[in-house]
Amino acid sequence: VTVATLQFVPRPGILDLGWGHPRPELLPVEPWLAAQRASAATFGWQALTYGYAAGPAPLIEWLAARTASAPEQCFVTAGASHALDLVAGLLTEPRDVALVDEPTYHLALRILRDKQLRLADASGRGRLFYTVPTFGNPTGRSLPLAERQSLVARAKREGFTIVEDDTYRELVYDGAAPPSLWELSGGENVVRIGSFAKTVAPGLRLGWINAAPSLVERLKNLGYVDSGGGVNHATALTMATFATSGAYDEHLARIRGAYREQRDALCEALDVDKPAGGWFLWLPRPAGLTLAAAERRGVSYVDGSRFQVDGRSGHIRLSFSMLPPDQLVEAARRLRP
Amino acid sequence: VTVATLQFVPRPGILDLGWGHPRPELLPVEPWLAAQRASAATFGWQALTYGYAAGPAPLIEWLAARTASAPEQCFVTAGASHALDLVAGLLTEPRDVALVDEPTYHLALRILRDKQLRLADASGRGRLFYTVPTFGNPTGRSLPLAERQSLVARAKREGFTIVEDDTYRELVYDGAAPPSLWELSGGENVVRIGSFAKTVAPGLRLGWINAAPSLVERLKNLGYVDSGGGVNHATALTMATFATSGAYDEHLARIRGAYREQRDALCEALDVDKPAGGWFLWLPRPAGLTLAAAERRGVSYVDGSRFQVDGRSGHIRLSFSMLPPDQLVEAARRLRP
Repeated sequence: VTVATLQFVPRPGILDLGWGHPRPELLPVEPWLAAQRASAATFGWQALTYGYAAGPAPLIEWLAARTASAPEQCFVTAGASHALDLVAGLLTEPRDVALVDEPTYHLALRILRDKQLRLADASGRGRLFYTVPTFGNPTGRSLPLAERQSLVARAKREGFTIVEDDTYRELVYDGAAPPSLWELSGGENVVRIGSFAKTVAPGLRLGWINAAPSLVERLKNLGYVDSGGGVNHATALTMATFATSGAYDEHLARIRGAYREQRDALCEALDVDKPAGGWFLWLPRPAGLTLAAAERRGVSYVDGSRFQVDGRSGHIRLSFSMLPPDQLVEAARRLRP
Repeated sequence: VTVATLQFVPRPGILDLGWGHPRPELLPVEPWLAAQRASAATFGWQALTYGYAAGPAPLIEWLAARTASAPEQCFVTAGASHALDLVAGLLTEPRDVALVDEPTYHLALRILRDKQLRLADASGRGRLFYTVPTFGNPTGRSLPLAERQSLVARAKREGFTIVEDDTYRELVYDGAAPPSLWELSGGENVVRIGSFAKTVAPGLRLGWINAAPSLVERLKNLGYVDSGGGVNHATALTMATFATSGAYDEHLARIRGAYREQRDALCEALDVDKPAGGWFLWLPRPAGLTLAAAERRGVSYVDGSRFQVDGRSGHIRLSFSMLPPDQLVEAARRLRP
């Protein structure tokens, strides 16, 4: 395919649990359009001209409150992946070592490799440490509090920066999410990355960074960030409108309920433990199952090998984000031997 | 200022010709909102989910037709500066030499330096050659046809890639714009960068690249581009709607007329030649004038030194984009000794 509109292309007859994509019915088409109207009314031409390098004040102020951080610790990005690309670029040189907490988000491995970093598992020494410690991708699990504290202590001791990918924090279904590494660290040795891709819409390409003010200054002073007046100004102002109007919390409550039902349907059909948040299950690969065999039976997933630096894994990742409960139950049936 | 909304902060009493920003009244607030409504009606949830890495088909197809290129030669970026950052990252290694055609866009110098490139003037040898050959920033002038042809021939001979920043092509006030280096090269040894920042709105952070299909494939396969499903999907679909509805050409006709009037007012008041397009005048610095002295007289500009690799220049850059004709006439009066 030379030209397409969407990343995901459905394959007839296959229930696809491979993609960490939102369920289409849960995207806020009407509320987002209403926020665009309100943003145009509030900001007028100011939403369309060159913005402020760190992101426009209305969104920065909301983010600062939401993340219990200072405004000078906040920077608006064009998504979490863009944030990782920016941060890795500033904190490392080609051929440095980046540590990753395996299994981990497979495309983060590619983003780090694009920076010509050498990847190593969590036991090594490196310049940065990438992790998704809360409702993680691909496991759905969260790092226990004691391990959070020891990781933060280790970063201070060894002098590396933890890049905490906190994309899934708001998608919590049971109880409260654990404290972030950012919060536990007091803002040192940790850069936290957040995203509106899972909570609002991936197509917006909008995310954010919490970091020390000195790193935020370096981000603002990148030539291409300064040249553009921030990286996604108009969308950021619409998001500020969406957030401060209450539409964000209302939408979040709606999708939390829906994704909780989807999680319950898949976990109960498979008879496995339920992750407390996020979009994923990480399961031992059923004996004798291959991806090709699964797809012949009308179900798909991502093999666990893609989430490991050395490409070896006995697991598979299932996403319950994209399909309604009844289809998840049927997908589970097709996965059983 | 720790938190702001816009890049430009007005200073009381100063008519500022320093910024290459649009005049607020010429930003398409209502037409863009209409395009957002139409895009939501046409694409629904598809505008909000993960898009296609090269940019969504409706915009790619329009761009291909508009730039007389094949769809596989087109890639949607988050602005021209982002395009330069991406292309420089793929075509060079740190410490390579980048040639620049001086004077040139000052923030491009910073973007290239952020890639740890060594900058040299056009006479040297390098891996890439950055130029704004059409209604250039900062001069407003265009490279003559014979020099275009010899630059393209030189790129093929010496094996470097020309990065043609074509941001100002559509802002033509007299006659037709000269053929692009991209067109003259037949698509080899040239990467063309375009932007909707000047033609529609900078706050959208939307631009594009014309490049060989092999380079477009490399851009699509960047981890962070693939991870995000393109770099500005929702805005790209709104732009496709804005473009294919005719609103783009209508808006362009309106702003061409307005910027032509602004150009005429400033050039006639200063009694200087009129550039055939773009937003800038490049003039010898009036004898004895300093920026500080000018600002005391209530007018500002950018000193020419910022557009040179070695920081030496006897010129100043004036932008006629941001102010209406009567204020430009008054600014010219304040510039005269």
